[in-house]
Amino acid sequence: MIKASICTIGDEILIGQIVDTNSSHIARALGSAGIEVARMESIADKREEIISILSKELKDNDIVICTGGLGPTKDDITKDALAELSGSKGYVKNEEQEAIVYDILHSRGLEVLDINLKQAMVPDTCEVILNKVGTAPIMAFHFPEEKFGHKAALYSMPGVPHETLTALGEVVEDIKRNFSTNSIYHKTIMVYGYAESALSKLIEPWEDALPADMHLAYLPNTLTGVRLRLTVHGGDGESQKRRANAQIEALKPYLGDHLYSEQDDCLEAVVGRLLKENGKTLGIAESATGGEIAHLITTIPGSSAYFLGSVTSYSPEIKKKVLGVKAETIEQKGIVSSEVAAAMAEGVRKVLGSDFSVATTGWADAYGDEFEPAGTVWVGVSGPAGTVTKRYQYHNDRKRNIERFAASALDTLRIYILNCLTH
Amino acid sequence: MIKASICTIGDEILIGQIVDTNSSHIARALGSAGIEVARMESIADKREEIISILSKELKDNDIVICTGGLGPTKDDITKDALAELSGSKGYVKNEEQEAIVYDILHSRGLEVLDINLKQAMVPDTCEVILNKVGTAPIMAFHFPEEKFGHKAALYSMPGVPHETLTALGEVVEDIKRNFSTNSIYHKTIMVYGYAESALSKLIEPWEDALPADMHLAYLPNTLTGVRLRLTVHGGDGESQKRRANAQIEALKPYLGDHLYSEQDDCLEAVVGRLLKENGKTLGIAESATGGEIAHLITTIPGSSAYFLGSVTSYSPEIKKKVLGVKAETIEQKGIVSSEVAAAMAEGVRKVLGSDFSVATTGWADAYGDEFEPAGTVWVGVSGPAGTVTKRYQYHNDRKRNIERFAASALDTLRIYILNCLTH
Repeated sequence: MIKASICTIGDEILIGQIVDTNSSHIARALGSAGIEVARMESIADKREEIISILSKELKDNDIVICTGGLGPTKDDITKDALAELSGSKGYVKNEEQEAIVYDILHSRGLEVLDINLKQAMVPDTCEVILNKVGTAPIMAFHFPEEKFGHKAALYSMPGVPHETLTALGEVVEDIKRNFSTNSIYHKTIMVYGYAESALSKLIEPWEDALPADMHLAYLPNTLTGVRLRLTVHGGDGESQKRRANAQIEALKPYLGDHLYSEQDDCLEAVVGRLLKENGKTLGIAESATGGEIAHLITTIPGSSAYFLGSVTSYSPEIKKKVLGVKAETIEQKGIVSSEVAAAMAEGVRKVLGSDFSVATTGWADAYGDEFEPAGTVWVGVSGPAGTVTKRYQYHNDRKRNIERFAASALDTLRIYILNCLTH
Repeated sequence: MIKASICTIGDEILIGQIVDTNSSHIARALGSAGIEVARMESIADKREEIISILSKELKDNDIVICTGGLGPTKDDITKDALAELSGSKGYVKNEEQEAIVYDILHSRGLEVLDINLKQAMVPDTCEVILNKVGTAPIMAFHFPEEKFGHKAALYSMPGVPHETLTALGEVVEDIKRNFSTNSIYHKTIMVYGYAESALSKLIEPWEDALPADMHLAYLPNTLTGVRLRLTVHGGDGESQKRRANAQIEALKPYLGDHLYSEQDDCLEAVVGRLLKENGKTLGIAESATGGEIAHLITTIPGSSAYFLGSVTSYSPEIKKKVLGVKAETIEQKGIVSSEVAAAMAEGVRKVLGSDFSVATTGWADAYGDEFEPAGTVWVGVSGPAGTVTKRYQYHNDRKRNIERFAASALDTLRIYILNCLTH
C-alpha cells in the first residue's frame, strides 16, 4: 500500500496559536484514494529542520505532502529548503502562476510588488500545479528511486486552508498518475446510549469474528454518542463496500434502536430529517440545557421548516408563567422531576402549537436537592402518542453535562418520533 | 531552553476523522511555562511505530507529551507500547484511579466491567497523575540520563480533550519540578468589535514601541473577538508582571470600551458578572441565533442568579403570539429589522419580567429578503434606559454567523448595561 506523510511547516502551529485543520482534510482525501497516511508532523520554520525531517519522511514513505511556509515574507523559507533538498540549480519563472498573481492583486486593487512576483518563481527541479485562488503555486517534486531508495514524491502546498482545499484534488490526481494506489473503504455508523466500554462488550462476538482485513474503531463524543468506524483493506472498492455493508447488517441486531445513523450524522440532523420528511413541527422547553438543544437543532440548514421555537425557563417563575407548570408540582415533586419535565413538554407544545416537543429539567453542576442529585436530568417528550419521560444520570461537570443532557433529550425525542411514525 | 515534542496517537487523526485540538492546548500551556515545542507528530495505533517514534522524540527532546490510545477497547495499545519502551516488568494497580473509575461509572448508573478496571492498571515504571474526570490515568515516565543521553520525561495523557485539559496543569507542574524552566509571563486581554487587521493598524504605534523582550500575539475567535496576548521574556516573574501591566495601561486609551476583559474571559462571563454584581436579571429573545445566546449565558456556573429565561421564536407566529411582535411591523419592516429586534426585546422583557433583555433577528445563511441580505443581524437591547438596536453585517456561513450574531448581541448588551450602570 502506498504510504504518505503529511507535514505542516510553521511556528504558529508549534506554539499553539492555530489549530492545524489542513492535515485532516488532506488525510481524508488521501484515504479515499487508497493511500495510507502513516504519519503527520509539524515542523518549525527552520531550514535545516525542514530539510532533515522531509528527507527522513521521504525515506520512510512514498509520498510527502507539506503545507505552509510559502508566504512572501522573510519568515517563510520552505521554498529555499525544498530547492536545496531537491538539488535545484536555480529558480525559474512560471508564467501562468505569475498571471494569476497579477489577477489576484489587481482584483483587490493592490499594487503588485517584487515580493509578490517572487511567488511565481520556483526551483527548476519541480513541476507546478497552479494555485488558482492564491499567489504561491503548488510544487510537485518527483524523485527517482536512487534518491531515497524507492520512487518518491513531495508536494508543497500553501498553508491557507481554502487554497489547500482548492488544489487538493489535482494533487491527488497527480499521485494517482504516478503511483498505483489500493482502495481503502471506511464505513461509519452512529450509536447513542452506550458508554464505549459497554458497547465494546455488547458487540464483542461480532467484533471478534471480523475478517483479518477489517478493523473497527470506537470514537466516543459527548454530543453524538459513539461513532463506530469499520475499515476494510482487502479487495477493490465495490467488494469492500459490499462486505462492509454486510458486516453492518450483521451488527444491527446487537444495536437495536441505539443505531441512529448509517452515515456520519449527528442526532440533531437525524431528528431534523425525521420531522422534515413527515411534515411535522417541533417545540422545545429547556431548563438545565439552557438553549443548547435549540442551538443544536438550528445549526442544521433548513431547520426553520420544522422548528417553531423554544422557551428556556431557567427560573421556576417562568416555568409556571410561560409553560403553565403548576406550583404544587414543583413543590411536591421537585423542580428536577418526571412530573415537571412532562408538564414543561406539554406546556411548550401547547404554547407553540407544535406536533412534538421535548423538555429538560436537571442539575448540571454542583447543586442538587432532596429529590435528585447533581448530574441528573429528566427529559420529557410530548406528541401525538402522549407524554413520556426518561431520567439520565451523569457526572458533575457543568459544560459537559449540558451537552450530555441535550444529546440525551435529542435521542429520547428521536426514539419517540420513530415509535409514533411506525405505530 | 527545555525542548518538548507533542505526539498524538490514534488512527482517527491520521485518517482525518478528527482534528487534533489537544496539541494546540498543550503547546500553549508549555509555552507559558517557558518550554519550547520543537515538534508535533501524529502516530498510528501500531505498537512498533509508537515505540520507535517516541524513542526518537525522547532522544531529540527533554520532554515528550503524548495523548490518546488509552481507551479500554482493543484498538488502544499505547499503554502496552509504553510498558515495553520503559522496560516495565509488569502492571500494578493504582488504587486511587480505580476508586475514580468506580465513582464515574456508578454515578452514571453503569456496571463496572473488567475492561474498565484495567484502566487503573499501569506499568510499574511510571508515576501516576490522577485523571479526575475520566478513567485512564496520566502516566509520567522519568528516564535517567543513560537511557536517552540526557534526562528525559514522557507523559501519556488521555485523548479526550476535556480530560487532557483538566490534567494539563498538573503535568506542567511535574515538568517544572523536574526540569529548570525559565519564567515567561503572559498577559491576555479581550477586545471585541475589531477585525484582527484593523486592530493591528489601530494599535501599531503602541506595538512598535514595545521593548525587544516583549511580544504581542493576536488570537481572533468568532465568539470572543480578538484575544491579545502580551508575552514578556526578560526578568523574573514579579518584574515581568509589573512591566506587562504597565504596557496594558498604555494600550487602554486606544481600545476604549472595546476592551472588555483584562483576563482571559469570554463575553458571557463579563455580562454575567455585571448582572450579578448589580443584582439585575436578564431575559433573551432569539431568532437567528436559535438558542446560542441562552446556551452561552448558561455555560457560566451560577447563571441562574440572573438569567430568568429565553424564548427562541424561530417562526414568525411565535414572535407574534409569545413575544407580542405586531404582524404589521413584520410585514412593513421585514422580519429582520430594527423594529422587530426592538419589539422582540421589549416583548421578552415584559413576558419574563427581567431588568434587561437582548434579542436577535437575522439571516444566518443563504436566505435574505427584500429588506436585508444574508449575513445581517439586528440586535435589540431593552432595559431601564429604553430600547436600542444595532445592525451587524457578516458573510454567508451559517454556523459561524450564528456564533458571530450571538457574540455581537452579547457585546451590544454589555455596552448597554455598562452605560446604564454608570449614568
